[in-house]
Amino acid sequence: DFLHALDEVKPAFGTDDSELEDVLPFGIIEYSKGISHILKDGMLYVKTVKEQPNLRVMSVLLHGPRSSGKTALAAKIAQLSDFPFIKLITPASLVGYRDELAKKDYLHKLFTDAYKSPLSLLVIDNIERLIDWVPVGARFSGSILNTLVTLLQTPPPKGHRLLILATTSQRSVLEQLDVTTAFDNQIPVPAIQDLGELGAVLAQVGAFDGNYRRIIEDIQQTTRSSDVNVGIKTILTTLETAKLSESPEDWFVEQISGQIARYPSV
Amino acid sequence: DFLHALDEVKPAFGTDDSELEDVLPFGIIEYSKGISHILKDGMLYVKTVKEQPNLRVMSVLLHGPRSSGKTALAAKIAQLSDFPFIKLITPASLVGYRDELAKKDYLHKLFTDAYKSPLSLLVIDNIERLIDWVPVGARFSGSILNTLVTLLQTPPPKGHRLLILATTSQRSVLEQLDVTTAFDNQIPVPAIQDLGELGAVLAQVGAFDGNYRRIIEDIQQTTRSSDVNVGIKTILTTLETAKLSESPEDWFVEQISGQIARYPSV
Amino acid sequence: DFLHALDEVKPAFGTDDSELEDVLPFGIIEYSKGISHILKDGMLYVKTVKEQPNLRVMSVLLHGPRSSGKTALAAKIAQLSDFPFIKLITPASLVGYRDELAKKDYLHKLFTDAYKSPLSLLVIDNIERLIDWVPVGARFSGSILNTLVTLLQTPPPKGHRLLILATTSQRSVLEQLDVTTAFDNQIPVPAIQDLGELGAVLAQVGAFDGNYRRIIEDIQQTTRSSDVNVGIKTILTTLETAKLSESPEDWFVEQISGQIARYPSV
Amino acid sequence: DFLHALDEVKPAFGTDDSELEDVLPFGIIEYSKGISHILKDGMLYVKTVKEQPNLRVMSVLLHGPRSSGKTALAAKIAQLSDFPFIKLITPASLVGYRDELAKKDYLHKLFTDAYKSPLSLLVIDNIERLIDWVPVGARFSGSILNTLVTLLQTPPPKGHRLLILATTSQRSVLEQLDVTTAFDNQIPVPAIQDLGELGAVLAQVGAFDGNYRRIIEDIQQTTRSSDVNVGIKTILTTLETAKLSESPEDWFVEQISGQIARYPSV
Amino acid sequence: DFLHALDEVKPAFGTDDSELEDVLPFGIIEYSKGISHILKDGMLYVKTVKEQPNLRVMSVLLHGPRSSGKTALAAKIAQLSDFPFIKLITPASLVGYRDELAKKDYLHKLFTDAYKSPLSLLVIDNIERLIDWVPVGARFSGSILNTLVTLLQTPPPKGHRLLILATTSQRSVLEQLDVTTAFDNQIPVPAIQDLGELGAVLAQVGAFDGNYRRIIEDIQQTTRSSDVNVGIKTILTTLETAKLSESPEDWFVEQISGQIARYPSV
Amino acid sequence: DFLHALDEVKPAFGTDDSELEDVLPFGIIEYSKGISHILKDGMLYVKTVKEQPNLRVMSVLLHGPRSSGKTALAAKIAQLSDFPFIKLITPASLVGYRDELAKKDYLHKLFTDAYKSPLSLLVIDNIERLIDWVPVGARFSGSILNTLVTLLQTPPPKGHRLLILATTSQRSVLEQLDVTTAFDNQIPVPAIQDLGELGAVLAQVGAFDGNYRRIIEDIQQTTRSSDVNVGIKTILTTLETAKLSESPEDWFVEQISGQIARYPSV
Ligand SMILES: Nc1ncnc2c1ncn2[C@@H]1O[C@H](COP(=O)(O)OP(=O)(O)OP(=O)(O)O)[C@@H](O)[C@H]1O
Ligand SMILES: Nc1ncnc2c1ncn2[C@@H]1O[C@H](COP(=O)(O)OP(=O)(O)OP(=O)(O)O)[C@@H](O)[C@H]1O
Ligand SMILES: Nc1ncnc2c1ncn2[C@@H]1O[C@H](COP(=O)(O)OP(=O)(O)OP(=O)(O)O)[C@@H](O)[C@H]1O
Ligand SMILES: Nc1ncnc2c1ncn2[C@@H]1O[C@H](COP(=O)(O)OP(=O)(O)OP(=O)(O)O)[C@@H](O)[C@H]1O
Ligand SMILES: Nc1ncnc2c1ncn2[C@@H]1O[C@H](COP(=O)(O)OP(=O)(O)OP(=O)(O)O)[C@@H](O)[C@H]1O
Ligand SMILES: Nc1ncnc2c1ncn2[C@@H]1O[C@H](COP(=O)(O)OP(=O)(O)OP(=O)(O)O)[C@@H](O)[C@H]1O
Ligand SMILES: [Mg+2]
Ligand SMILES: [Mg+2]
Ligand SMILES: [Mg+2]
Ligand SMILES: [Mg+2]
Ligand SMILES: [Mg+2]
Ligand SMILES: [Mg+2]
Repeated sequence: DFLHALDEVKPAFGTDDSELEDVLPFGIIEYSKGISHILKDGMLYVKTVKEQPNLRVMSVLLHGPRSSGKTALAAKIAQLSDFPFIKLITPASLVGYRDELAKKDYLHKLFTDAYKSPLSLLVIDNIERLIDWVPVGARFSGSILNTLVTLLQTPPPKGHRLLILATTSQRSVLEQLDVTTAFDNQIPVPAIQDLGELGAVLAQVGAFDGNYRRIIEDIQQTTRSSDVNVGIKTILTTLETAKLSESPEDWFVEQISGQIARYPSV
Repeated sequence: DFLHALDEVKPAFGTDDSELEDVLPFGIIEYSKGISHILKDGMLYVKTVKEQPNLRVMSVLLHGPRSSGKTALAAKIAQLSDFPFIKLITPASLVGYRDELAKKDYLHKLFTDAYKSPLSLLVIDNIERLIDWVPVGARFSGSILNTLVTLLQTPPPKGHRLLILATTSQRSVLEQLDVTTAFDNQIPVPAIQDLGELGAVLAQVGAFDGNYRRIIEDIQQTTRSSDVNVGIKTILTTLETAKLSESPEDWFVEQISGQIARYPSV
Repeated sequence: DFLHALDEVKPAFGTDDSELEDVLPFGIIEYSKGISHILKDGMLYVKTVKEQPNLRVMSVLLHGPRSSGKTALAAKIAQLSDFPFIKLITPASLVGYRDELAKKDYLHKLFTDAYKSPLSLLVIDNIERLIDWVPVGARFSGSILNTLVTLLQTPPPKGHRLLILATTSQRSVLEQLDVTTAFDNQIPVPAIQDLGELGAVLAQVGAFDGNYRRIIEDIQQTTRSSDVNVGIKTILTTLETAKLSESPEDWFVEQISGQIARYPSV
Repeated sequence: DFLHALDEVKPAFGTDDSELEDVLPFGIIEYSKGISHILKDGMLYVKTVKEQPNLRVMSVLLHGPRSSGKTALAAKIAQLSDFPFIKLITPASLVGYRDELAKKDYLHKLFTDAYKSPLSLLVIDNIERLIDWVPVGARFSGSILNTLVTLLQTPPPKGHRLLILATTSQRSVLEQLDVTTAFDNQIPVPAIQDLGELGAVLAQVGAFDGNYRRIIEDIQQTTRSSDVNVGIKTILTTLETAKLSESPEDWFVEQISGQIARYPSV
Repeated sequence: DFLHALDEVKPAFGTDDSELEDVLPFGIIEYSKGISHILKDGMLYVKTVKEQPNLRVMSVLLHGPRSSGKTALAAKIAQLSDFPFIKLITPASLVGYRDELAKKDYLHKLFTDAYKSPLSLLVIDNIERLIDWVPVGARFSGSILNTLVTLLQTPPPKGHRLLILATTSQRSVLEQLDVTTAFDNQIPVPAIQDLGELGAVLAQVGAFDGNYRRIIEDIQQTTRSSDVNVGIKTILTTLETAKLSESPEDWFVEQISGQIARYPSV
Repeated sequence: DFLHALDEVKPAFGTDDSELEDVLPFGIIEYSKGISHILKDGMLYVKTVKEQPNLRVMSVLLHGPRSSGKTALAAKIAQLSDFPFIKLITPASLVGYRDELAKKDYLHKLFTDAYKSPLSLLVIDNIERLIDWVPVGARFSGSILNTLVTLLQTPPPKGHRLLILATTSQRSVLEQLDVTTAFDNQIPVPAIQDLGELGAVLAQVGAFDGNYRRIIEDIQQTTRSSDVNVGIKTILTTLETAKLSESPEDWFVEQISGQIARYPSV
């Protein structure tokens, strides 16, 4: 398939590669056809930036519910891009800076570094947290927001190209903030949608020694539905704790059924 | 029972232990089965962090009404964890710092210290007060909130693990602030629910020279209900003042009945 | 009675005593049984802090309408407590500090001083003004509020005890600010309630050469009610001006009747 | 009458006297009995502060519509008080200070100076402007407001006395700001109420060579009412411009009638 | 007429005169009787300040719709006043100062300079922009507003006089801000009201080689009304561009008709 | 046609020319008669500033939907103006400055530079982003807004002229902020309106080897309308990505139809 085909041409990277590996602890599991479509679309934008001289900057927004795998997929596209300069910007990278000014300077410096390379790719992870969004009082850092929005649209100097991949689990917030219009393209990243996809995940990771079918049935009985709407990250981390509990299967079924009940699909 | 079984394996601790002892002046009284369930759940998360390499950070929120024993239970789990680095962060630890910046730096430093140990446990006590929440005008320190939320989700460097236990008596506030979604797990800590549990407390602490049954009856007659919904801390401190009053039994019944009337269970 | 009995054991004090005397220009007049109840309750909390080792800090809120005698009563309890460290914190003690930071530092320093004594008592007078509360726009100093609330609940180091007596004439404001829940106990201080109590005051201070009965009747006729709801402070200061006016009795009746009309009891 | 009787005992003053004279360019005209009542009340408070040792501080608020003579009357009482320390604080005295902090310091310094004299009187003119009140958005300087309110209630050291006379034309604003309760007493200063009082003013200043009766009639015809509700200051300054116009009587009638129409009495 | 009569006595001025000339690029055209009334009123206030010793400061507000000639008329009155100190304060004079504090200092300095001259006149142009008024969120510089309002009412030292002429096109905003009450007098400056007045303007400037009658008719036909409600400044600048267009008459009719349609008279 | 005629007289420029070229990567395509009208209007204002001495400053606002070509057209007019001083101010030029003060200084400096040349032209691009407008909470930089509005209306010194071309895609926001009234003239820049204009674009750029007619038909069938309402910039950049996709025609039709559906014309 597309994903595995691409994996074979994955180049050796420099220092930043471990950074990307860090956000892919469980790799990319191809539990539905949507996964390779996302990667394919990402690679088309990589190619456009590489080859069309009139477009010096392009920005793409990956959006979807919490835990759906946005950060991992952006990192995967970055790994596959083969660009000489790749950098991941996360809320954690800003947390050590003392105030908005220092954070703004850091972002500005980062883009300036990117401009020096002929081909650069920046992953801007979790925009709503980068701008310190808090729904109470609709608070956010206006100065970081404005810096980001302006930098998203600023082309690097002649002879240089920049691709920006950003992620968010709060697209409607970004729309209210008028940030989405600053992106050239958008890619939706859905959660695991139904028990079929969940089964595919459990099968591929070899959970419960392969006896996952009973689990799927138990969840169906508990939730009386085949909808799931839980992110891949939640599934995989719940599995880790489940393994250590007294009764792994029951714990997993209980936790995931609880998640499904709490956040029903719409 | 589970709690006492665990107590026997309680390890000797270093400097931070007196800090934990300080918030356990009355120890942990097992007045209902819920208490050992809370400790058991806590220990499962301790184990997951210790043993699953793919999860470098995990965060758990203990929430419940005022005085229900959240801080004491988090401290108990920390004592039982046997982790080499344990630290308790309370509103009082921040009060001496002059401004938000200094407080943010302190928090950042504390997490950085934790990252140095292979296994660390941080108790973040009373989140709503750490972020200086005031309901009038929905005021709070956005910068401390954002620092905490980001640090909750930031993994320590490779080879290091971190478990975060946080407490709050204002879960609905944290939900509005979109903080609860940053936690991997939650543990509810209820107040003393009925006169049966209250009797168990009085029995175990040997209050009123064991003649607590009359007290329970008096409260039932005064409040015309067997509901209690008062936190264990309030019960125990009221007992202390009652002992010194001219008529300890009457004073205790009067005070506790007043509490029950003021905050009815829902 | 209780009050006079206690007065006899009043100890000799150090430097801070004149501070307390200053807010008691007219002493404590026992115009109703409620007065000695308030002092008795206060002394029970004094005793609890002195004698129960598990409670290192305790806080009590005296609340009531303007001029009802809150500050004087808190000062009286402090005088009677016989604690080696007593300090009165008023809005005037903060007014000379330049900004919120300096005020916060002053408060912090004051509590730190208190922690050094084995037994300390702090009177925090007029909380709503200490936090610069203004009803228009619900403005207040969040940082002073948060400092106070945290300090109210912070125990001194082992072997040290602290009793905090605070006063307010805006309890409903403090409730909105979620401050009242930070107190362990509350004591209501009512205004002078009816003409009987007013007569008791006039009798005890020997006003109008003892001919106060006509005054009471005149006020009753003017207001057509025996309700009063005016604070003891207003009564005593109005008396002082009245004495100098051309017709003292008439002036007093006119002023007090005006007060009664303006703020009817509810 | 009372006013003239007092004038004869007017003492010789020091440096501050010209300051007081400056706000009395037209002196005090006794156009109604209310004027001497105001001065009499003011002098009773002067006497109380002078002679009653238990009251170290007393504050009085003069309030009334714009131009009604509040500043002039406060200055007159100050002149008549014979106190060794008198100071007038106006918005203009604060305008040169750079920020709220400097203004706060100035006020604090001023009160501290007053505390040094055994008997002091401060006129705090136009409180709403001193606190920079703007109705749009209900803006004001919270820190100046809080400084003033606290200082109003802070007694000078033992052996010292302080009388504070404040003025405002926005009493309802001060009530919303909870400032009025900080005053011990209030004195209303009404505008000129009817054409009778207006005639008395014109007569006493010898306007229009004594032919003021036609003016009164013209105004009555124009406004079809004998109500006036215009401040004494507006009357006197309009007279000054009128004198220089081509047709003084017509100009005066036109302007004053316009004023009456614009702000009808309620 | 009055205006021309005055022009003949126009004195030679010093440095500030070019400043005044600059805001009068097209001079003052007397297109209606209202114009000389405005100048006459202005000169009466000039005379009052010059000759009445009891009034050391007087302030006048010229208000009217955008482009109606307020600045030009205030400058004309200033030119005609023959005062030794005249200064024009515009938003542009403040734009170079870095913050509110620097602007406040500049204003304070300017008034202090004015106080040094025995007779001074200040033109404060476009108050709403001087205070940085923005309707969204009702934002403005409170500190500049308060400085201006206080300075408007502060008399210079004895022996000195000050006349202040201010302009605004947002009188209703100033009324909400409670600024208008700080002025002693007000002068309305209307826009060009009908086609008769417009014709007078075109005639006096010799536009379209005197063939302006066809223009008036064309506008009447286009707008189907003889109302105009467009400011003199708009008329005169539109004429300048029209002259350079391919078809001056058509362009002028089109533009002015558009203006009339956009802002109909009420 | 007008555009091409003008192009021939395009002068050789200095350093700033590449700046202008940069925002014209695809040049100006004359896909409708409106394009040359916009350029003609622009040139009339250029001429007025050049030749009419009474108008030292003139400002024009180009407004229209996103991507409609506003920046490119303003740059084109600037290129054609033949002015010795031309400068383009974009959000990106401000992003490196640390705070509002530095940005304000930069703007002030820029205008001051412009004032030194006898004839200057400033392009102020994307006003809403220059003032950091965010719709949530209607946030913006008041100080940059006020600086811009004042500078728009400030004439350069005698003998100097300034033309300001500004662009915005948020005219209604600017109207709420009362900015539009500060402009002397406005030029609307519409999006591509119908499939006829879209066809003209595709024809002129030689897209799809000239076989664009099928594309137009496909879009018509997909959207069931001949309306377009998509900006020229979106059309041209989508073409660039389409060229690299597996099936260029389908991709282009899909993307543009999506755009048309998302933002229907009104
Ligand atoms: N098909 C997949 N797509 C994305 N992630 C996958 C996939 N298969 C496995 N994973 C793993 O799932 C996890 C996805 O977590 P990730 O942090 O990317 O989610 P997220 O949507 O960014 O979460 P958040 O909303 O918290 O930012 C990663 O550990 C990744 O290795
Ligand atoms: N089963 C129990 N669970 C918790 N605390 C207990 C228990 N039994 C006894 N205690 C004692 O009760 C007190 C609980 O107080 P704690 O401060 O933990 O309550 P809290 O819920 O954190 O209060 P707050 O809402 O004020 O933060 C401690 O003194 C602890 O020693
Ligand atoms: N029984 C009493 N209780 C309290 N105060 C009394 C009593 N008898 C006499 N006093 C005198 O009454 C005055 C009470 O004033 P105090 O300042 O305490 O009132 P307060 O309620 O604190 O007023 P405020 O609301 O302004 O803070 C003091 O001067 C005190 O000496
Ligand atoms: N009976 C009077 N009472 C007050 N002022 C009088 C009286 N007779 C004459 N005056 C003169 O009237 C003027 C009153 O002006 P003053 O500034 O005191 O009014 P104000 O109410 O303070 O005005 P504002 O509301 O503007 O502060 C003074 O010039 C004073 O000399
Ligand atoms: N009768 C007149 N009154 C005022 N201005 C006139 C008159 N006749 C000609 N003018 C000219 O008209 C212009 C008026 O512009 P001015 O700037 O004074 O208007 P404005 O009302 O202050 O505008 P804005 O509302 O923008 O501040 C000046 O150039 C002035 O020379
Ligand atoms: N007739 C035209 N008008 C404008 N731009 C054109 C035209 N023909 C081709 N173009 C090209 O279209 C693009 C227009 O983009 P431009 O940045 O000017 O749009 P914009 O309206 O400023 O967008 P934004 O709303 O993002 O600021 C430029 O690349 C320009 O070279
Ligand atoms: Mg993510
Ligand atoms: Mg707790
Ligand atoms: Mg008090
Ligand atoms: Mg006054
Ligand atoms: Mg003007
Ligand atoms: Mg643009």
